[in-house]
Amino acid sequence: MKVDGRQMRPIWLDEISQTVKVIDQRQLPHRLVIAELTTVDKVITAIQDMYVRGAPLIGATGAYGVYVAALNTRVSSNDEAFFLKECDRIKSVRPTAVNLAWAVDTVLAEVSQNETLADKTNTAKAAAARIAELEAENCRQIGVAGLELVKAVSEAKNGDTVHILTHCNAGWLACVEYGTATAPIYAAFEKGIDVHVWVDETRPLNQGARLTAWELGKHGIKHTIVTDNAGGHLMQHGMVDMVIVGTDRTTRTGDVANKIGTYLKALAARDNDIPFYVALPSSTFDWQAFDGLKDIPIEERDPNEVRYVQGDDAGSLRKVLISPPDSSAANPAFDVTPANLVTGLITERGVCRADENDILRLFPEHP
Amino acid sequence: MKVDGRQMRPIWLDEISQTVKVIDQRQLPHRLVIAELTTVDKVITAIQDMYVRGAPLIGATGAYGVYVAALNTRVSSNDEAFFLKECDRIKSVRPTAVNLAWAVDTVLAEVSQNETLADKTNTAKAAAARIAELEAENCRQIGVAGLELVKAVSEAKNGDTVHILTHCNAGWLACVEYGTATAPIYAAFEKGIDVHVWVDETRPLNQGARLTAWELGKHGIKHTIVTDNAGGHLMQHGMVDMVIVGTDRTTRTGDVANKIGTYLKALAARDNDIPFYVALPSSTFDWQAFDGLKDIPIEERDPNEVRYVQGDDAGSLRKVLISPPDSSAANPAFDVTPANLVTGLITERGVCRADENDILRLFPEHP
Repeated sequence: MKVDGRQMRPIWLDEISQTVKVIDQRQLPHRLVIAELTTVDKVITAIQDMYVRGAPLIGATGAYGVYVAALNTRVSSNDEAFFLKECDRIKSVRPTAVNLAWAVDTVLAEVSQNETLADKTNTAKAAAARIAELEAENCRQIGVAGLELVKAVSEAKNGDTVHILTHCNAGWLACVEYGTATAPIYAAFEKGIDVHVWVDETRPLNQGARLTAWELGKHGIKHTIVTDNAGGHLMQHGMVDMVIVGTDRTTRTGDVANKIGTYLKALAARDNDIPFYVALPSSTFDWQAFDGLKDIPIEERDPNEVRYVQGDDAGSLRKVLISPPDSSAANPAFDVTPANLVTGLITERGVCRADENDILRLFPEHP
Repeated sequence: MKVDGRQMRPIWLDEISQTVKVIDQRQLPHRLVIAELTTVDKVITAIQDMYVRGAPLIGATGAYGVYVAALNTRVSSNDEAFFLKECDRIKSVRPTAVNLAWAVDTVLAEVSQNETLADKTNTAKAAAARIAELEAENCRQIGVAGLELVKAVSEAKNGDTVHILTHCNAGWLACVEYGTATAPIYAAFEKGIDVHVWVDETRPLNQGARLTAWELGKHGIKHTIVTDNAGGHLMQHGMVDMVIVGTDRTTRTGDVANKIGTYLKALAARDNDIPFYVALPSSTFDWQAFDGLKDIPIEERDPNEVRYVQGDDAGSLRKVLISPPDSSAANPAFDVTPANLVTGLITERGVCRADENDILRLFPEHP
């Protein structure tokens, strides 16, 4: 999407240097810094420390990671077993993000056709680019499908502002283009529908306040940041028309694992009869998972992400301690929203109910 | 309660200088700073800017504010009408805190018996001290009543740790002693019951991470800070045995207005069959209010409380900006939890259900 008038993506291959570049999203919205992923360690750091985040972008980064691994193995040991071990390291960085493993495996399957590491490197590069394009196209299609839902609300309100609440960042920064939860919003905005977005700040890492607000603002879309605590109150008072969130992992039965706190918004939406949609590319489906609460492992992250908050102080990025120095914290990164709280799934193949039968109607290749 | 071995309250009259002193809670947990409320403007600032917060403490501060108003009026104009206007200013600082008005009116009723401002000053001082003692005693009684609930859970778990989740700070810092939501926790701890507290950080002002964690830690009670987003997940996984929160205003039908985000935790508690208790001194009852969502005005506070986060950076208190500089924010400070989500009210007269009949059983003087 556009940043200060310039087309930009969160990951790309620099055509001249042939290096993989990403936006270091930890520094947004205060600074736009680009990082070069020249080694596997840098790929892992970028995923682990959340330079890149969001299921589709993590997938694309993993795919490009295989290219980086092949490139570096070729230069160093030229040892196939080492190359595969490097790819395994990339795969296991974030357990909840199912399409990290999917993307790495997809690229690996393609390169397994090649004999030499030189060929594998070229194949991996092309495959990663294709995965990135596929993610962009999936998000465009999610926008096409979700647009109809927003349009229906707008028409029911006689063109009055449609208020959409979203949690975390499932925007183009989390994907490659358009975003997932934001794709219907960008699509509605392009069609001239009057939309306003309630942006949950999304503690602990504030992806809403930092990233969603930044990308919506850069695109000119009306938005208001609220604490994660506020959504229920807004819904009680008729100030939210629909909720759209993303997902990091979705069971075949329609349970969704998304950023911690999503479940609370789904409960509030149900309590106030507000539609709660989850937008996703089908790469986030875990077709082996039937019960989200039992089958999806929840990543426990560094407690210091809770204890410290990063922000800008007169041009400098600083972390401030918000708690007593000797109090401990817990930091589960995701929660599971059961399918019965989900009004519908917005996928690249259209909208379906969050139940196995209706999901398989759109994805019959996974019986 | 104890702070570094020394008995302390959040508000007291300095016997030597006869000035009202409060802990400036904005600077906790990083610094323990005492403020002197020598003028009505300082009283208003202390309430407005949240040096003091929490229903009972705001009440006690309002009561002492009448004393400060009388003292200053006597020195300046000696004009009764001016004195009453000053008290009106104090009363209207925070509209949601019903016992601010209650405390001011209670002291005013007593001083109306006096002829001279000199007498009114002395009467106000004594009345304010009595209100502060009453709040402390009420909280002690809340602890006595709530202890039985914690004890029952402990026994049902054969003495295993009782995990209690709380939101915001309804501790002794919010009251005068013991706290409301924390009173049963302190009482259980004194009886040797194994308790552990999940402390919601409570954005935007982080009263949980800053104040509840600080006071529990100073008292030696096990606790873990979590983001406001995490409680639902903890409840889904059996990691919360009960929820206890405070309230700023309670309808006669049992709806409670408490810190924004309380409603979301109540929804999660219901969804996971976890008891959700609200602890309150009866001064928070608004006997005229029947419908919390309609009858309780919700204070909208400065959006910069959402956009900036205060914390400690190597010994200095700093505010960092977490959002894009040009994104706006909304900051509703409270939400209403409907009575049907509340398992019980823990009051100074015992525990009752959150419905009008059972409330009136304990408070028959408000038919």
